[in-house]
Amino acid sequence: MGEAATAPAAVRATIGDSEFDRDTAVTRRAPGVYDIDLSAGWTIISAVNGGYLLAVLGRALADALPHDDPFTISAHYLTASQPGPAVIRTDTVRTGRTLSTGQASLFQYDEEGAEVERIRVLASYGNLDTLPDDVRTTAKPPAFPPMDQCFGPQDGPAPVSGSSAIADRLMLKLDPSTLGWALGAPSGKGEMRSWFGLADGRDADPLSLLLAVDALPPTAFEIGLKGWVPTVELTVHVRARPAPGPLRVSITTRNLAGGFLEEDAEVWDSADRLVAQSRQLARARLS
Amino acid sequence: MGEAATAPAAVRATIGDSEFDRDTAVTRRAPGVYDIDLSAGWTIISAVNGGYLLAVLGRALADALPHDDPFTISAHYLTASQPGPAVIRTDTVRTGRTLSTGQASLFQYDEEGAEVERIRVLASYGNLDTLPDDVRTTAKPPAFPPMDQCFGPQDGPAPVSGSSAIADRLMLKLDPSTLGWALGAPSGKGEMRSWFGLADGRDADPLSLLLAVDALPPTAFEIGLKGWVPTVELTVHVRARPAPGPLRVSITTRNLAGGFLEEDAEVWDSADRLVAQSRQLARARLS
Repeated sequence: MGEAATAPAAVRATIGDSEFDRDTAVTRRAPGVYDIDLSAGWTIISAVNGGYLLAVLGRALADALPHDDPFTISAHYLTASQPGPAVIRTDTVRTGRTLSTGQASLFQYDEEGAEVERIRVLASYGNLDTLPDDVRTTAKPPAFPPMDQCFGPQDGPAPVSGSSAIADRLMLKLDPSTLGWALGAPSGKGEMRSWFGLADGRDADPLSLLLAVDALPPTAFEIGLKGWVPTVELTVHVRARPAPGPLRVSITTRNLAGGFLEEDAEVWDSADRLVAQSRQLARARLS
Repeated sequence: MGEAATAPAAVRATIGDSEFDRDTAVTRRAPGVYDIDLSAGWTIISAVNGGYLLAVLGRALADALPHDDPFTISAHYLTASQPGPAVIRTDTVRTGRTLSTGQASLFQYDEEGAEVERIRVLASYGNLDTLPDDVRTTAKPPAFPPMDQCFGPQDGPAPVSGSSAIADRLMLKLDPSTLGWALGAPSGKGEMRSWFGLADGRDADPLSLLLAVDALPPTAFEIGLKGWVPTVELTVHVRARPAPGPLRVSITTRNLAGGFLEEDAEVWDSADRLVAQSRQLARARLS
């Protein structure tokens, strides 16, 4: 508080002391059972962002399992979450030396107070810091314009759809070549690219990568679709602990067919390392 | 196309009456509980193939859920399965009009007869035949040589590792440009491509696509690694019912780092339609 009073604008939030950390904090009620109050700060239109929800579940599993980091986490989205109280029930499936596997479900309550399941997750955790240093990747970072040539919600007349709460918590700077949709001229290519950070300056960690992969406008906008693109399933692989500094998130859709599409995301850190890969299956509302 | 490589038409197996159908048949013991005898016919070296196991679990869920086809199915592999008796326990998580979600676990038995969990799966099912016909895909089929310029286990001195049981049940014809590893000269590129079918001529269906995505030699061989590449997690999206005829399976690895790698598979049918996409996280044994 004293620091905030002396230098409010200049103080960057840190991992462990930030909006994201406070809003994903879970309280252990019993072994494997956690309470959380889902924050209204991560909503888009009226829905709670799916990446924020995945980070909440990921945090509960990090507490319940003997390993810290989600190496691979798969979420099936069942019903729409709302800001407010929720309970997470975890189940330790298997514990091993280098990997452990767990399951978690997030529930909210209907009018009679009965539990309604929102999301179910299956995940294998490990410790990123114990992995060997070998990198034989052939993946190359996507071409990105410098951040000062990219555009976010703060830069113009609603270039990003709506002025929802989550926009205030994120630092998004979209590649103008994937912003045609905002000007009424979608490119027709299923691509979306953005610089990504948290607005309070907190650096990325494995849990915030779960948010990063699902925080950009849908690629469907650039294909010419409008409206909501609800996630059916989202799987994230976290491959390395991200270096400090802004991330680059590149999302690609190659196959829109039968009313469904995939969104493949890759996340690169400031050290040019591929730190996360994800794929989701989403429903398209064909216009 | 491909008739020469499959069995004569008079004795071709059909969907519902084939080795694959018999070896994935589950017997309902109680609501949501199924018995199966895992076949030794789908082993590679000493392990039961992960795609075959996924098809077995997928078949149990198709019976347990109100929808028929796995739209997205995620499996976490816990312990190594062995040929022999197993029990599958399913849980219906949510049923909706167009999608239903279920969970399934496959167990085998230790020396004392106690259940040991082998795999846990979370999946959302729908009915492929009810989807709209729209296809706006930008994905293009990968370049493949004609089948008669490709090579399988039957074509030479063990170009495919070992002469394991599964090789007798599959029609695999590998693109020679991804066969360098078999000649001691891996390309260094994380690519593997093969024509794919079932040896008895049975055509593909959504369940056999779950096998197809995990049936090729590991891309790690072309990166220069040897030995086993155990799957941690495998997620498959089935996007369309495959047309009759051989499939083309293309697998890519872009990121080998920290002792793990992803394998991205896409499966194309004879009508040039992208019928399945998958990604797995696997462990690399660094040599």
